[in-house]
Amino acid sequence: MSDIIEFYCDFSSPYAYISAHKIEALGKKYSREIVWKPFLLGAVFQINGQVPLRDQALKWDYSIYDIERCARRNGIDWVLPEFFPVATQAAGRAFYWIEEQDRERAKKFALEIYREYFGKGHDIQSKEIVAEVSEKVGMDKKECIASIEKDVYKLKLKDVTSEAIDKKVCGSPFIFVDDEPFWGNDRLGMVDDWLGSGGW
Amino acid sequence: MSDIIEFYCDFSSPYAYISAHKIEALGKKYSREIVWKPFLLGAVFQINGQVPLRDQALKWDYSIYDIERCARRNGIDWVLPEFFPVATQAAGRAFYWIEEQDRERAKKFALEIYREYFGKGHDIQSKEIVAEVSEKVGMDKKECIASIEKDVYKLKLKDVTSEAIDKKVCGSPFIFVDDEPFWGNDRLGMVDDWLGSGGW
Repeated sequence: MSDIIEFYCDFSSPYAYISAHKIEALGKKYSREIVWKPFLLGAVFQINGQVPLRDQALKWDYSIYDIERCARRNGIDWVLPEFFPVATQAAGRAFYWIEEQDRERAKKFALEIYREYFGKGHDIQSKEIVAEVSEKVGMDKKECIASIEKDVYKLKLKDVTSEAIDKKVCGSPFIFVDDEPFWGNDRLGMVDDWLGSGGW
Repeated sequence: MSDIIEFYCDFSSPYAYISAHKIEALGKKYSREIVWKPFLLGAVFQINGQVPLRDQALKWDYSIYDIERCARRNGIDWVLPEFFPVATQAAGRAFYWIEEQDRERAKKFALEIYREYFGKGHDIQSKEIVAEVSEKVGMDKKECIASIEKDVYKLKLKDVTSEAIDKKVCGSPFIFVDDEPFWGNDRLGMVDDWLGSGGW
């Protein structure tokens, strides 16, 4: 038993975008800290031979319809960005740079990155956009751009991605309550049930 | 608006097995009749170029763990059958043969077929086993075996499968509330929400 919940999320994952709006409330309900773990889903897929959602025609059609429906139900803005999916190295490294200084601020940054991408449709591959988002949460834009190129944050993002592979994370969002794995935004209810009942 | 809920299910689908235990209660809650529509998921996958769950290594590992967990939570027996997945033509045709005579009895048969396969692990490809299950719900075993070979029920199962393809069904279970599509056992809660709120 620990007092945390791990939240593995890729910044280019629409379902993680939805969950990102709800996960903190769930943590609060059970007095567990949410540890956000941005990682690179593309790298995981490559190693596992998995196919991105967009390349699975029927599943993609349904998912796009469903994501919009989930967003609407939760009062969350939603656009399908013109560039999708995108590489999220810049945002991921910036996240770990901010987290090193202030964990709560890093979470705010993560949510703002998601909103920039899926709420407004802006291309978050761009270091400049990532740095502008960091400014919104009180960081220095130039420092942010510099941090994105620093080995320490490159390595941190790689390490978390390797950790995800080791833990058999096969999608995003992917949540661990202690060692119990839950995959998908539609499993938040089950996470709630698990925590509320003490597991089964 | 109609007064039904369509429940597309493949008899070889573990998540449909879980839903099959819960869907009637949901229909009752909203005074909607559940129309069970057994179909051939394999045929849908073939046409769509989709890959069966079992052939997606990591997703399969997670799913098997998750199905057992869902079954446990709902007090439903669960074994992974030695032969999985299997062709469900015999069970599907027998279902439509029974349905022609008595819709409620056909639903009971469907649930018994699921339990024979995922509750006990018996091979439901076999006409004999399918016919024995039909006996449990009061049908004649010999007539059942004969019906499985009849063109009318072969055609009915093919037609429902074609209908599923036309409606972009991409997995099992797949539920329609009016024209609204819901895919997966973990969406029963959303179906409930949709019906309770009148949609959004």
